[in-house]
Amino acid sequence: MQDNLITAAQSAYAYPLLVKQLLINSVSLYGDQEISYRGQMRYTFRDFRGRIGKLASALTSLGAGHGTTVAVMDWDSHRYLECYFGVPMMGATLFTVNVRLSPQQILYTLNDAGADIVLFHPDFAPVLEQIRGELTCNPRFVLMADGQNAPELTLPLAGEYEALVEAASPDFVFTDFDENTKAATFYTTGTTGDPKGVCYSHRDIVLHTLASATSLCSPREGQRMHREDVYMPITPMFHVLAWGIPYIAMMLGLRTVLPGRYAPDALLKLRETEKVTFSHCVPTILQMLLQSAQDGAQDLSGWKIIIGGSALPPALCEAALARGIDIFAGYGMSETGPIVSLAQIPPGCTPKDRAEEVRMRCSTGRPVTMVDYRIVSEDMQDLPRDGKSRGEIVLRAPFLTKAYFGKPQASEELWAGGFLHTQDVAVMGEDGFVQIVDRIKDVIKTGGEWVSSIEVENLITEVPGVQECAVIGVPDAKWGERPMAFVVRKAGAEVKPEQIRDQLMTHVDSRRISKYAVPEAERIAFVEAIPKTSVGKINKKQLREEAA
Amino acid sequence: MQDNLITAAQSAYAYPLLVKQLLINSVSLYGDQEISYRGQMRYTFRDFRGRIGKLASALTSLGAGHGTTVAVMDWDSHRYLECYFGVPMMGATLFTVNVRLSPQQILYTLNDAGADIVLFHPDFAPVLEQIRGELTCNPRFVLMADGQNAPELTLPLAGEYEALVEAASPDFVFTDFDENTKAATFYTTGTTGDPKGVCYSHRDIVLHTLASATSLCSPREGQRMHREDVYMPITPMFHVLAWGIPYIAMMLGLRTVLPGRYAPDALLKLRETEKVTFSHCVPTILQMLLQSAQDGAQDLSGWKIIIGGSALPPALCEAALARGIDIFAGYGMSETGPIVSLAQIPPGCTPKDRAEEVRMRCSTGRPVTMVDYRIVSEDMQDLPRDGKSRGEIVLRAPFLTKAYFGKPQASEELWAGGFLHTQDVAVMGEDGFVQIVDRIKDVIKTGGEWVSSIEVENLITEVPGVQECAVIGVPDAKWGERPMAFVVRKAGAEVKPEQIRDQLMTHVDSRRISKYAVPEAERIAFVEAIPKTSVGKINKKQLREEAA
Repeated sequence: MQDNLITAAQSAYAYPLLVKQLLINSVSLYGDQEISYRGQMRYTFRDFRGRIGKLASALTSLGAGHGTTVAVMDWDSHRYLECYFGVPMMGATLFTVNVRLSPQQILYTLNDAGADIVLFHPDFAPVLEQIRGELTCNPRFVLMADGQNAPELTLPLAGEYEALVEAASPDFVFTDFDENTKAATFYTTGTTGDPKGVCYSHRDIVLHTLASATSLCSPREGQRMHREDVYMPITPMFHVLAWGIPYIAMMLGLRTVLPGRYAPDALLKLRETEKVTFSHCVPTILQMLLQSAQDGAQDLSGWKIIIGGSALPPALCEAALARGIDIFAGYGMSETGPIVSLAQIPPGCTPKDRAEEVRMRCSTGRPVTMVDYRIVSEDMQDLPRDGKSRGEIVLRAPFLTKAYFGKPQASEELWAGGFLHTQDVAVMGEDGFVQIVDRIKDVIKTGGEWVSSIEVENLITEVPGVQECAVIGVPDAKWGERPMAFVVRKAGAEVKPEQIRDQLMTHVDSRRISKYAVPEAERIAFVEAIPKTSVGKINKKQLREEAA
Repeated sequence: MQDNLITAAQSAYAYPLLVKQLLINSVSLYGDQEISYRGQMRYTFRDFRGRIGKLASALTSLGAGHGTTVAVMDWDSHRYLECYFGVPMMGATLFTVNVRLSPQQILYTLNDAGADIVLFHPDFAPVLEQIRGELTCNPRFVLMADGQNAPELTLPLAGEYEALVEAASPDFVFTDFDENTKAATFYTTGTTGDPKGVCYSHRDIVLHTLASATSLCSPREGQRMHREDVYMPITPMFHVLAWGIPYIAMMLGLRTVLPGRYAPDALLKLRETEKVTFSHCVPTILQMLLQSAQDGAQDLSGWKIIIGGSALPPALCEAALARGIDIFAGYGMSETGPIVSLAQIPPGCTPKDRAEEVRMRCSTGRPVTMVDYRIVSEDMQDLPRDGKSRGEIVLRAPFLTKAYFGKPQASEELWAGGFLHTQDVAVMGEDGFVQIVDRIKDVIKTGGEWVSSIEVENLITEVPGVQECAVIGVPDAKWGERPMAFVVRKAGAEVKPEQIRDQLMTHVDSRRISKYAVPEAERIAFVEAIPKTSVGKINKKQLREEAA
């Protein structure tokens, strides 16, 4: 077999896929486009590009360079966006620190990643001061303050972001390097063991940007992004690069609004004043936004929102649709780029009724461009696309993480058999819509039958008066496991266990769930709140500990 | 400097960018989508995928495999589309033979590319029989007939496409290989010397597909492609992979119509019966379509057409707009993927009048995603974006050809200074719109001043009664060169040289052109037809020879 490779001319430009290439036309075509920070500060893409050069010059003067790690601890700001580009573009690795982790976990991740520089907002000074003595990576600290005076700090500051950037030269030359260079890293908040470092290369980021942009832009209308959208992330920028969407927005030249620290009223006000049309968030935030908007009777029509992080509950979807929001789910994980599927209504399809429409919008979605998306049995055989056969979602795509940082065994398990294992159990319909029914470790096995905790949660959430719900499996001498429900009631609502059981039994009658899936009355507990992980997911590990 | 590359898990899938990956979701999401051949035969994407496997099996049985070259000589057919995927996917190189070249040039290209197999439509049997004795590559011949009996041939046939495919197994395993493997080759029809072989790798094709799709799909409305479009190419599939758009259409799941050999009436009928909404063609074809439609009084609204190959004349653009066609120009060359710019009206822009709209739609366009697009002086300095400063368009993009096949010197000239030289002279406006004013070798130098042949051609075409026009520089003792115009009159129209001069002088008065640009009356020649190259461009080389 001949290799049949193309021999390039010596002078030919190799064009490695680098983050800087995403900006090639952003300034030349959209130089006057605006980036707004909290509606209080705004500048143009041209200014942004100048500040990226200054940032790289400033970081170089602090010792950063190719192969170093620059950690950021900030709310969603224009400065964070500058780091999204400037840090990888200079060949350094952007480390987006999950600021919602415990101080001990933040310490672990800073040491594990070997942070050389930490850029931090004053709000995170206390945690840094608390853990500083145990930092083995000896980073330099740079304060990212909003123009206010620096707080009293015991940390030795190498400088203040605005002052450093102001004083630096914009004429930094961003050279080319290997497209497989590490561009960004962050940590997954697994429910067991230490957080695991996930890395994306420049190539990963560029290909995720192009593939997601193609999937987001190509619908005829609805559930789509276009060049005249105004973008505001409401998924924190520390969380999987805000799903990679800031890169799409900058590439396409979208007006971009960075909202700072999230507060529902401020977000709603920004949406209105900045005329935001495209966002993404977790269900909990949407719930808060809708609640806040209801109080203010705001018109939310024309707002497109992708929901991810956890499943979009049908009732929440209905409520958003009723407010005119074009809402749809997306799916992915820290390890997957992240976006691998989107719950867009398929081309040419008109849902036959609102229920079908809601089912589609709340589903795990259909695969994004270039994503090889399989639902497989334990021996990696494809399962029928019948909407019933349950198996694990395994993936191939040109932007999945290739390994956990320094964790060879976990990395091989992630990629067992050459496909990335999501640990999500799902069914796929004939129409290509995937529906996650559970996490592998959250599936409940009762009397030899598998029960989806998520399915039961969704049905309980439909009971009037129920605000939120979590279902786990608890040990049972007779059945092996039985489902147990933790239920949060709406303020002032009276809900009894039997009401929940009665409503679930109607779904047993309609064969939507089996009767084994209905918890006994004594296994329905009313609680004040459901414990959440740092990224807003239900913390089932903690619930299991509490139940035990 | 540390290299800072990511070390992949051993089991991790590398995901090379291969043509097969474009089809990953085409069958799973759009398996029932249709491909129609001339409206007379239709099958589904699922059938298409099966036939690709059969094709690869059949070609393997004829000796094709990784590194071999499979040449195709066909009109636009579903079989050609099968070859677009099946041949590169098996690691072979698809050679799209320009069937409009002379027999001697076809002979040269078949020998230069080293064709191992030639798939040919009966219409091209005569040329193959004519040159067969001089073929040094000793290919096997496969007939691609439309079900009719094979014609009497002296060529030794290795088989007939449909019979071979029918008998072969669909279960061909398309393995992975290096993404820089040669996927497709074809020849540029330069005006000097032998045709030059251009190659695209799998990576080139995938990245061109993603970047073009992003640019084509992202406008809010107008000049855009979306998933519900029905696609019919009207640029021959042998010509730069039909601008790469069949790959976009298959990736996005678009219903696709292959029209066979082009005939205006048949194309218009197909557009109507198949409800085609997206096409692309050269100006000459559009002219014929409009003429034909006018006779039939057809409604062409809702048809989006990209015009490329030559500049879109404003008068033709006006005529298309008047018929409801969403027409816009695109720009590229055989060496460039091909699409590097598109004349889409920018986001948020409302042209102030029809003239401005036409200027935008007829321009060379604005850069496609990821394309670094410069207008430079002879010493490679960026020129001001003032709409006046003229320089060469030079490019970088992740899908440009890296070399001409076996032509190292031409390859280095193409890439001098690390940018691909288009040899097109253009200006760029503040708004990022590029306008080609000439080919470097077609610019006319008169009395020390540069005159754009294209600009004068466009203005002469606006004179009532003028059908078409070509302007070249001819030697002049006093001025060095003077412009000379060759003019084709509309049937029955009377046009005199002085009418043309008078109208051009009005543009001199309005300072649109200099008075040096106006040809003398004796240098305005009326001709029956303008000579064209095999791809429909004005053959200025031949005009210069005729003038001399």
